[in-house]
Amino acid sequence: MASKNLLLLAGDGIGPEAMAEVKKLIAAMNDKLGSSFTTDEGLVGGCAYDAHGAAISDADMEKAMAADAVLFGAVGGPKWDAVPYEVRPEAGLLRLRKDMELFANLRPAICYPALAASSSLKQEVVEGLDILIVRELTGGVYFGEPKQIIDLGNGQKRGIDTQVYDTFEIERISGVAFELARTRKNHVTSMEKRNVMKSGVLWNEVVTQTHKARYADVKLDHMLADAGGMQLVRWPKQFDVIVTDNLFGDMLSDIAAMLTGSIGMLPSASLGAPDAKTKKRKALYEPVHGSAPDISGKGIANPIAMIASFAMCLRYSFGMAAEADRLEGAIAAVLDDGLRTKDILSEGMTEVGTVEMGDAIIARF
Amino acid sequence: MASKNLLLLAGDGIGPEAMAEVKKLIAAMNDKLGSSFTTDEGLVGGCAYDAHGAAISDADMEKAMAADAVLFGAVGGPKWDAVPYEVRPEAGLLRLRKDMELFANLRPAICYPALAASSSLKQEVVEGLDILIVRELTGGVYFGEPKQIIDLGNGQKRGIDTQVYDTFEIERISGVAFELARTRKNHVTSMEKRNVMKSGVLWNEVVTQTHKARYADVKLDHMLADAGGMQLVRWPKQFDVIVTDNLFGDMLSDIAAMLTGSIGMLPSASLGAPDAKTKKRKALYEPVHGSAPDISGKGIANPIAMIASFAMCLRYSFGMAAEADRLEGAIAAVLDDGLRTKDILSEGMTEVGTVEMGDAIIARF
Ligand SMILES: CC(C)[C@H](C(=O)O)[C@@H](O)C(=O)O
Ligand SMILES: CC(C)[C@H](C(=O)O)[C@@H](O)C(=O)O
Repeated sequence: MASKNLLLLAGDGIGPEAMAEVKKLIAAMNDKLGSSFTTDEGLVGGCAYDAHGAAISDADMEKAMAADAVLFGAVGGPKWDAVPYEVRPEAGLLRLRKDMELFANLRPAICYPALAASSSLKQEVVEGLDILIVRELTGGVYFGEPKQIIDLGNGQKRGIDTQVYDTFEIERISGVAFELARTRKNHVTSMEKRNVMKSGVLWNEVVTQTHKARYADVKLDHMLADAGGMQLVRWPKQFDVIVTDNLFGDMLSDIAAMLTGSIGMLPSASLGAPDAKTKKRKALYEPVHGSAPDISGKGIANPIAMIASFAMCLRYSFGMAAEADRLEGAIAAVLDDGLRTKDILSEGMTEVGTVEMGDAIIARF
Repeated sequence: MASKNLLLLAGDGIGPEAMAEVKKLIAAMNDKLGSSFTTDEGLVGGCAYDAHGAAISDADMEKAMAADAVLFGAVGGPKWDAVPYEVRPEAGLLRLRKDMELFANLRPAICYPALAASSSLKQEVVEGLDILIVRELTGGVYFGEPKQIIDLGNGQKRGIDTQVYDTFEIERISGVAFELARTRKNHVTSMEKRNVMKSGVLWNEVVTQTHKARYADVKLDHMLADAGGMQLVRWPKQFDVIVTDNLFGDMLSDIAAMLTGSIGMLPSASLGAPDAKTKKRKALYEPVHGSAPDISGKGIANPIAMIASFAMCLRYSFGMAAEADRLEGAIAAVLDDGLRTKDILSEGMTEVGTVEMGDAIIARF
């Protein structure tokens, strides 16, 4: 691939601090490895609202549509708690997902060996954990219409959201899950609530058909989403790839992330369909953690999730698997060296700030 | 209260085995304590479908409406996986909830000291845990219309579910949560996804108003439901009462239950509004665990959740708080004695079956 144009949307809170470390890394790759990344920047979230009254401007949306990949930091904070729903910080992220048609959200929940002890779960339950949650990202209750609050009079209002899934949406996301399972332990667990939701009935049906028609070599299980949440807490190592809808994916991937004790460390990739001609997928990479306004500006944020998101970008957008492996290796190495930001600090380890952590990873890369 | 008419709906799988232990307990209370419970029985779930093609018959629904309280076992199993959606086993439970207007589902997640070590979480994280999840049970995506699968032609279908909440529904469930918090640690955490759902925006608004107008003495926090799930896994002891909607409540209460390592032990109560005249609430009590078809009929099921559900019945439906305390004490005592059913067995404990466990609790009562 010739062009490697990245749009950096650092966002709010600790987003810019974490993104700064990725910028250093990109510069180092261009300088020392002869990579040819070009970068542009834009505003998203509260900072975009402050600048021009929308959570992302049309101009920045255009840049995102044109970029080879978008790196996204985090959005939101108490400062914008009272802004209107339509322009709240999250609306910027949701518009990016929707307009770029990023239907496939890949959320690996891996437990870094160096951090296994810091999980709230017993070490034997999480050690070696390596799950991939494949979450549908452009459908379901996030975008279904009607979505509104109606005034019924008499002091009564009605809040409505609509969960909608079409066959093709379920087909394409389960296809992604099955494909990825083949590169892993070949096992997919699909989660829904078919016992109370019609969309869950359809989900179950389409995943089953897709499996039968094209992926019969992959092991497929179905689990109710509530039972799935329980099983994640009880014995997460039973899972390889989990495929689920937008809202269940939101809940379940956060829980899976927390199990690992490594929430400040986990990246995600949001991918579109391959372009018919170029085969390129639109893509956005973002840390699983949020904007953490309480620690922003202090230089103590953990940049690892953002850097690991860039590793996913190397792998999925630029076919640079070797570099991605090396970058992930560098992260593991600095952890083995005992370096820790405050959020993952434990007895006997060396506390470092955001910049030092970034420098150490670049040095090990 | 003069009448103490109970309807027993044992259901499927291990439901009948667990219910049998409660029947013995009721008989013992009538015999030895001079209690005056009368019981009737009915069918719900798969067994009801087998008997008359519906997940609960109109006749049994009438009995449920007339009873002072309903004890419910569990429903479902692979045998009925392929029955039509409208008559699947769960439909019986959902009809009971809806027709009896059981809007308030109380799910205590407590960690029995004797079982703290058997949680997948670290002992210090769960020891002494005592959370009450107050889940809205008659609204939301469970019952909202439209709820259907539409054939779009071209091999495409569309699955639709509708999440709906009205002001009064949020008001009454948060009222229950605030009232209960006052009898506990006086702290309510409300969970929704106001950042993506309009019903979440309304939920947040109404809980805030209800708090301000009538319960300002209670500490109130708001948390996004995904963050709430993470916090439950990270440090559950930060919570006292959690109030949330039907679907989030389904997920979060199962996760909270699993944290305790005591899923076979946890009861729940589903309550209606107090009758204007008699002040009596319609009520249904059921274990949090399901029908566990894999172990049913083997005499090894844990009857404790069912018995603890009856303890909640004594407390909430019959004002028999002293007896409820004593029954809960009897459960704790047999655990301290080292008796364990297979699901909670650990090194050095004495394995017992369903019947022995029931007998031991009755003997200790
Ligand atoms: C910020 C928010 C809109 C978002 C979501 O709900 O999808 C976040 O929780 C996530 O999981 O990426
Ligand atoms: C059996 C099922 C319909 C039910 C639900 O989803 O409410 C169960 O999971 C529960 O939590 O009581």
